[in-house]
Amino acid sequence: MSDTKIYQASTTAPVNIAVVKYWGKRDPKLNLPTNSSISVTLSQDDLRTHTTASCSSTFASDTLLLNSQSQDTSGARTQACFRELRALRAELEASNSSLPKLSSLPLRIVSENNFPTAAGLASSAAGFAALVRAIANLYELPATPTELSRIARQGSGSACRSLFGGYVAWEMGSKDDGSDSLAVEVAPASHWPTMRALILVVSAEKKGVSSTSGMQITVATSQLFQRRAEIVVPAAMEAMKKAIKEKDFESFGKVTMMESNSFHATCLDTFPPIFYLNDVSKAAIRLVEDINNAAGKIIAAYTFDAGPNAVIYYEEENTAAVAGVIKGALGGLEGWASREIEPKESSALDARAIGVLRDGVSRVILTQVGEGPVRTQESLIGADGEPVKK
Amino acid sequence: MSDTKIYQASTTAPVNIAVVKYWGKRDPKLNLPTNSSISVTLSQDDLRTHTTASCSSTFASDTLLLNSQSQDTSGARTQACFRELRALRAELEASNSSLPKLSSLPLRIVSENNFPTAAGLASSAAGFAALVRAIANLYELPATPTELSRIARQGSGSACRSLFGGYVAWEMGSKDDGSDSLAVEVAPASHWPTMRALILVVSAEKKGVSSTSGMQITVATSQLFQRRAEIVVPAAMEAMKKAIKEKDFESFGKVTMMESNSFHATCLDTFPPIFYLNDVSKAAIRLVEDINNAAGKIIAAYTFDAGPNAVIYYEEENTAAVAGVIKGALGGLEGWASREIEPKESSALDARAIGVLRDGVSRVILTQVGEGPVRTQESLIGADGEPVKK
Repeated sequence: MSDTKIYQASTTAPVNIAVVKYWGKRDPKLNLPTNSSISVTLSQDDLRTHTTASCSSTFASDTLLLNSQSQDTSGARTQACFRELRALRAELEASNSSLPKLSSLPLRIVSENNFPTAAGLASSAAGFAALVRAIANLYELPATPTELSRIARQGSGSACRSLFGGYVAWEMGSKDDGSDSLAVEVAPASHWPTMRALILVVSAEKKGVSSTSGMQITVATSQLFQRRAEIVVPAAMEAMKKAIKEKDFESFGKVTMMESNSFHATCLDTFPPIFYLNDVSKAAIRLVEDINNAAGKIIAAYTFDAGPNAVIYYEEENTAAVAGVIKGALGGLEGWASREIEPKESSALDARAIGVLRDGVSRVILTQVGEGPVRTQESLIGADGEPVKK
Repeated sequence: MSDTKIYQASTTAPVNIAVVKYWGKRDPKLNLPTNSSISVTLSQDDLRTHTTASCSSTFASDTLLLNSQSQDTSGARTQACFRELRALRAELEASNSSLPKLSSLPLRIVSENNFPTAAGLASSAAGFAALVRAIANLYELPATPTELSRIARQGSGSACRSLFGGYVAWEMGSKDDGSDSLAVEVAPASHWPTMRALILVVSAEKKGVSSTSGMQITVATSQLFQRRAEIVVPAAMEAMKKAIKEKDFESFGKVTMMESNSFHATCLDTFPPIFYLNDVSKAAIRLVEDINNAAGKIIAAYTFDAGPNAVIYYEEENTAAVAGVIKGALGGLEGWASREIEPKESSALDARAIGVLRDGVSRVILTQVGEGPVRTQESLIGADGEPVKK
C-alpha cells in the first residue's frame, strides 16, 4: 500500500529593497549578476509572502497557486528551484533509507502576499525566497540560508537576498557554475534596528520594460554600464558595508541615493533608453532633497527599483522630520493609518513637487528593517491537501 | 578735433544643436571642454541672432542691448570677448598707422533674436557668435572663423560652433591656454543639404539647473562621467564624422540619440541629480521610436540639450513619414504654418505618448541645416549711434 500522506511545511518571507543595485546578468540562465549588491530586508508585518509547500502521491503534478491564481510552473526558473531542492532531498534520502521519498512526489505550493500586487512592488524576491524556504522546510534540508540563496537566485536574482533579515549582500562570485554567487548577512536587523522605510506608491500608467529583459539590453548597449559594474559598484559595496557596520546614516543615505541614480543613469544610457523614473519619481527626489536641506544633513535617502515607486529610508529618531513632514504634505493618502505619525508642517518643501506628488502617489507604506523568513504553523493547505479557502 | 564718427558693422548668426554633446569644462574660465563635440547649424531663416556692433568716441562706455533689454557687459565672458577682439584690432592698428584707433573706443552692441526667448532655445550660442562676428566685421579683422571660434568659445562654449554653417566640430584641444580648442567645419551645409529639424518646444514649469553650473557638478560628482569623456565621446566623434561624410542617416541618427541619452545619463548620475528630460520629453522619444519602428529603420533622431525641448532630425525624403506623421498627431500646435507639411495619419504611434505631447508641447519649429554667420547691411543702430526703434 502506497504512502498517500500529505506532507507540508509553511514559511513567510520578506521583501528586500536594494541600496546597492543589481542590474545586469553575466549568465541569464543561472541569474549570475555582473555586480554584487546590498539590500535592506523590510518587515514582514507590512510586506511578506506566506507560502505553504506540500507534496503527496495523491497530487497529479507540480502546481503553484499565488493569491488564488494558478501559476505556470513549467518556466525554467521555477523548474530550476524544484530540481535543485529535490536533488538535495534525494541526497538525504540516499543517505538515510528511513526517510520518506518526498523528492519523487509532486509538489503543491500555495502562496499569498499581504500587500496589493497592484502596488507594483517587486514581489518576485519575496515569492521565490518563500518558495525555496518552504520547500526546504518540507524536505527538512539542513542547508543554511546562504546555501539556499544559490537556489533562490535561480528563481529570481534578488530573491537570494530575501533569505536573510537585516542588511544583506549578494556577492556576485566569479565561478561559471554560480556556486559562489551567494547571499550573506552584512548585519542582522538587531544591529541597526532603527532603520525605517516609507514607500510612495506611484500610480504608473503601465508597466515599463521588465527588469529581466531591460537589464540585458543595458548590458548589450550601454556604453557607461561597464564602468558602473567594474568601478562604481565595487566602491559602493565597500562604502555601504562600512556605513552599515558603523550605523552611519549620512554615508548610508548618500551611497543609497547615488547608487539609485547610477542604476537609472545606465537605464537611460541603454538603447533604446529605459525610463523607470517619471515626473512623480522626480518630485519624490526633490522632496527628499528639500527635507535633507532643511536638516542640514542627509536624514532621508531615496531609492527606486525598476519602477516609479520611491522607497525613502530614514532613522527612527528622524521620524518627525521625514515621515511627519511627508504626512504633513501628503496626509490625504491611503496607508498612513498603519503607524502613528504626527503630521508636521514644513515651509522647506517645493510646492510644485508636492502638487505633483499629491496627484501621482496612490498610497504610502510605512515599514522598517525586519527579519528573514520565519517558519509558521499557519498553513495555506488543509489536511485534505486542498488550498484553504479564506 | 577728435573723431566723432559712428563706426558700425552687422551680422546674423545661427543657432546650432549638438549631435555629439558638450558637457563638462576642464577650465571653466576659458570654457575649455572635457570632450570634443559636433553640431548641426540650423537655418537662420527660422532661428538667428541679428547683431550690430558699433564704436564711437561719443559713446560713454561699452553697452549691450539684447531684444531691447540692456545687458550687463561686466561679466568675465563678455569682457573676455571684448578684450580679445580689441587686442587683434590693436595689432592691426600698430602695423598700419592709417587705420582709425577703434580698439580704444567704447563699443555699443545691439542684438535681436527672431525667435521667442521664452521658447527655451539655447540662444547664447547664436548670441556670442553674432557678437564676436559683428565686432570682427567692425574691426575688419582678417581672422578666419576658426580663429574667431577661440574667442567666441570664451563667451559661451557652444558659440564657437555657430561661426560655421553645416556640420561643425569643436575639437577640445589639449593646451592649457586653449589655443587649440577650436571649431572646424566637418562638412558644409551644401554637402548634406537635405537635413531637416523639427523642434518640439516643451512648456517647462521652470528653468532647471543652468548648464554652466550643472556641468561642473557633473564633473565633480558623476562616477560615470569620466568614462563618457574619455571613451564614449571620442568613439562618437569618429562615428559621427564618418556618418556625416557618408551622408549615412541611420548612423547619424543612432549616434545622435545615443549621445543625447549618454549626456542625460551623466546628468542623472550627478549628485544631486540633474533632470532636463521630463515626461513630455520621454513621450517625444517614444514618438521617434514609433516612427522608426514603423519605417523599419532609423529615419528620425531625437536630441535634447539642457532642457526638455526635443529636436528631431530627419532627411527631406522622409518629410511625410516624420514631420507629416507628427503633424497628423499634433496638428493643433502653433508653428506648422512655416512649411508646407501634409498631415499624415499613422496607427503606429502610442496613444498615451501623443496625449502627453498634446498637453505638454507649446509649439513646433520647422527648420533645416543652414549657413554660418552672414554679413548684412541691415543695421540695428542708426547713423546717430542710437538703437533703431522698431
